[in-house]
Amino acid sequence: MILIGLDPGLGCTGWGVIAADGNRLRHIANGQIKTDARMPLAGRLVLLDAALASVLAEHGPQGAAVEEVFVNENPQSTLKLGQARGVVLLAAAKTGMQVGEYAARLVKKAVVGSGGADKVQVHAMVQRLLPGVRISGADAADALAVAITHAHHLASRRAYGLDAA
Amino acid sequence: MILIGLDPGLGCTGWGVIAADGNRLRHIANGQIKTDARMPLAGRLVLLDAALASVLAEHGPQGAAVEEVFVNENPQSTLKLGQARGVVLLAAAKTGMQVGEYAARLVKKAVVGSGGADKVQVHAMVQRLLPGVRISGADAADALAVAITHAHHLASRRAYGLDAA
Repeated sequence: MILIGLDPGLGCTGWGVIAADGNRLRHIANGQIKTDARMPLAGRLVLLDAALASVLAEHGPQGAAVEEVFVNENPQSTLKLGQARGVVLLAAAKTGMQVGEYAARLVKKAVVGSGGADKVQVHAMVQRLLPGVRISGADAADALAVAITHAHHLASRRAYGLDAA
Repeated sequence: MILIGLDPGLGCTGWGVIAADGNRLRHIANGQIKTDARMPLAGRLVLLDAALASVLAEHGPQGAAVEEVFVNENPQSTLKLGQARGVVLLAAAKTGMQVGEYAARLVKKAVVGSGGADKVQVHAMVQRLLPGVRISGADAADALAVAITHAHHLASRRAYGLDAA
């Protein structure tokens, strides 16, 4: 099963595609979509949408996941993040995929084994779980971590007979 | 020129379409797009996007405008609003339209003549500026007010020779 993890942001959205066969994972691709802060907002959202559509068309994932949002104390940052996140969720859901959402703590627990892990530990474990991966940057690493979490979640649902295999 | 005003919200997005010939305005249509809070977020965004696409296809506006956002003190509300706003801006910009943004104060000033006007005054003036209009609700009224503001803005740009007529 091909899965995509997404880490939305207006300035930089990370994405990571993996193949999951039960608990066996393989890296397929990852990247970061950047938009220029000097452009008008609507134009940035159009660029983000177009770039995502091309990633989705190229890799044809069957499932998607995003991290539940840490709401920033700065309301303007939260609004920016929200606008990018809306576009990212829409792009994924429009293809007919279910879009999973996972709390940051759960992602850390799934990838590192502890909900209190820091970014460096998560990055290192993503490297280890996906041998040979070259990670495009911090947001792509987060996106791959979410994809891995989604794969584990789906595998355990199947193990407990919650889904058709 | 056909213009659409938009008042984004996850639970309810207002829209209003007018025809503007210089300062002469005519109401074409208005409405509100509601999504059910019990649905998953991504599904609500897909519904909002599909409903907007159908409004845009039906009325074929040549210009769009939204209100600049009043950022809520509740970060979760700001995030929800941002997600809907991202989808709304994207839908409009994807058709190739410029999307204007106007501060709430400017909308009140354009419609009522005073930046301190209240909602009731704005609603009443929208009724008066668009004779015969039947307004679907508060969000549709706000959307029509933004469309009127956009029309005035475009008319004065033309009056000052800032755009080709």
